[in-house]
Amino acid sequence: MYRINDCYQKLPGSYLFSTIARKVAAFTEANPDKPVIRMGIGDVTQPLTDPVIKALHKAVDEMADGATFRGYAPDLGYAFLRDAIAEHDFRERGCAIEPDEIFVSDGAKCDSGNIQELFSTDNKIAVCDPVYPVYVDSNVMAGRAGTYDKETGCWSDVIYMPCTEENGFIADLPKERPDIIYLCFPNNPTGAAITKDQLQNWVDYANKNGCVIIFDAAYEAYISEENIPHSIYECAGAKTCAIEIRSFSKNAGFTGVRLGYTVIPKALKCGDVSLHDMWARRHGTKYNGAPYIIQRAGEACYTEEGRASIRGLVDYYMENARMIYGSLKDMGYTVYGGVNSPYIWLKTPDHMSSWEFFDYLLEKANVVGTPGSGFGPSGEGYFRLTAFGTHDNSKAALERMAKL
Amino acid sequence: MYRINDCYQKLPGSYLFSTIARKVAAFTEANPDKPVIRMGIGDVTQPLTDPVIKALHKAVDEMADGATFRGYAPDLGYAFLRDAIAEHDFRERGCAIEPDEIFVSDGAKCDSGNIQELFSTDNKIAVCDPVYPVYVDSNVMAGRAGTYDKETGCWSDVIYMPCTEENGFIADLPKERPDIIYLCFPNNPTGAAITKDQLQNWVDYANKNGCVIIFDAAYEAYISEENIPHSIYECAGAKTCAIEIRSFSKNAGFTGVRLGYTVIPKALKCGDVSLHDMWARRHGTKYNGAPYIIQRAGEACYTEEGRASIRGLVDYYMENARMIYGSLKDMGYTVYGGVNSPYIWLKTPDHMSSWEFFDYLLEKANVVGTPGSGFGPSGEGYFRLTAFGTHDNSKAALERMAKL
Repeated sequence: MYRINDCYQKLPGSYLFSTIARKVAAFTEANPDKPVIRMGIGDVTQPLTDPVIKALHKAVDEMADGATFRGYAPDLGYAFLRDAIAEHDFRERGCAIEPDEIFVSDGAKCDSGNIQELFSTDNKIAVCDPVYPVYVDSNVMAGRAGTYDKETGCWSDVIYMPCTEENGFIADLPKERPDIIYLCFPNNPTGAAITKDQLQNWVDYANKNGCVIIFDAAYEAYISEENIPHSIYECAGAKTCAIEIRSFSKNAGFTGVRLGYTVIPKALKCGDVSLHDMWARRHGTKYNGAPYIIQRAGEACYTEEGRASIRGLVDYYMENARMIYGSLKDMGYTVYGGVNSPYIWLKTPDHMSSWEFFDYLLEKANVVGTPGSGFGPSGEGYFRLTAFGTHDNSKAALERMAKL
Repeated sequence: MYRINDCYQKLPGSYLFSTIARKVAAFTEANPDKPVIRMGIGDVTQPLTDPVIKALHKAVDEMADGATFRGYAPDLGYAFLRDAIAEHDFRERGCAIEPDEIFVSDGAKCDSGNIQELFSTDNKIAVCDPVYPVYVDSNVMAGRAGTYDKETGCWSDVIYMPCTEENGFIADLPKERPDIIYLCFPNNPTGAAITKDQLQNWVDYANKNGCVIIFDAAYEAYISEENIPHSIYECAGAKTCAIEIRSFSKNAGFTGVRLGYTVIPKALKCGDVSLHDMWARRHGTKYNGAPYIIQRAGEACYTEEGRASIRGLVDYYMENARMIYGSLKDMGYTVYGGVNSPYIWLKTPDHMSSWEFFDYLLEKANVVGTPGSGFGPSGEGYFRLTAFGTHDNSKAALERMAKL
């Protein structure tokens, strides 16, 4: 009999957001008269902007004509998009990233999940705690996490780097040397941002200790303060130790459009093996490029008009973030995030556990958030709310919470 | 220092089609006056059909309006598409596949490459020889293939099942029991089709021997003869041993649009572990759904108008296939395929090797095909031509070949 990859069996329960979806579905079925406001999963609500819509229609028309029809895309992405990314996301910020160091994909989640394939299964990963579940779960599936301890919520072979009120939700350098370090800033779920000096420390640590950093910058568009790096390549030496993953989901509202990219500098080598070449080989073997029409939509995000329209989207959500942050503070909650991030991280009141507060909020206010403990043991006692709702819904949710 | 997945280092040369692309680019640069006709990579040339274009525009318009905007898709695909697939691709053919046994993805290549993750790395795979390179390469990357022998072109831990003139390019049952069996019918690259009785033998063998079959049915739309199964689920017992992978690339011309799906029946279990649940978990963790607008394009392929338009596309390419097959035969070539498949599989003349014939055809006729040896050792001495060109190009290529 064939045998399965039994690492899958080690995964406890189901993926966080699936569990939430199930709980909300059960509540809604039992209470059809109580409309629920969703501030849980980080899904956007505002429509695509005009420049993107125009680009999509134009590209669709091209696909209707034999003279302009496009079949298989280049595995690594069309040059028109990679050029625009290199110029606007990197060179304009002083980062010398070349277009052929950019790998276009159908989203940051896929890249976050797949990137671990490049590494040996005996490498040790370090993650911030709390953390986006995909980093850990994809390593569990690959057999890199060891065994799960139900009591602590920890995997035996994963190095957890607590992000707490004490360290301002910026992890300290790990005591034990990891091989692979996952960092996400502005952070999901805490909303914390890292300063350039702090990130430089990580880069220096990685180069000194032979670690590779997987830097998730999906939320960089939400940075509003100075001295917060938008890319890890703003730090000296990052090109020899860091991979960066970016998304179009949260800035341009592409959660249902699917576009992202990963940067692997050519200078990133393990001995004489180029990780850039390895990822190119993976893309060539297991991937077939992002859809042409969607790469054109991505390109439209970088025109002057496109950038202004995306700034408008980000401003819309950040207005929510300010409102949520301020209102919760007024209600007496202890709140973090929301300044350089669309996420508000709040301390549950009255020593409730994260899931207790989830149930409480769902039942009493019909508001859905995400339990902090779902992101890791140090998330226990916290709760994440997102600013991706409409203004009206966000306001209504706060009014309901104020009445509790 | 972190360590890489050194299985990548075992892969010889680069992916077949990348090598061809490099050779063609070099030729074109050296001979800018000699326009090349491409009959190598299986990329389509005809534009998307009207019903698909209309569906794309409509879906783009929905994304422009807050009331109809769609964010994250359901991980496993929208119900509107899964229902249409279940109805038209399966139930109409008498296969009892439920919509929730269908996992929508961004293409058959990704699914073909990723599916092996569900299995233990000590499982042994069996592949037809010649074969679509993704099956073997993705298993090499996972460490399931052993070591590569340059002399034979074989991996030590892979069971090769030769498909030759003698067996009509339908592999015999393997002498050594494999765990995972990859089958692709109508076949890429040989163009051979399998009868229902022949496929039933494989299903019976798999059930009896505890094997799982990964059945790639990407070319089912090209079946023109009776008694050739369009789905492996036409065979009794397939639901307990087979996974089927499907594509919209070759029937609806979606090579640049990216849409496919994989069927994992709920009855497919390894002991008490459901492979369906494992794949759902993988999708939930490492994938974020196919784009909404593209799923709507997929749905449009199943309306009456859509199906007629796709039949038109398939007929267009099959007209090419008939012409290529007939002309090559008239020129004295030994040719196979082309009847239930868009691929023509020809024997190289004068005992040339596959790559010798590739170079000869590129240099003398400026026609690009695919060397059979690129698909495996038994492909040596063969050459694949595709029918996916325009009528004019296909005709012109044949005229050039006739002059050799």
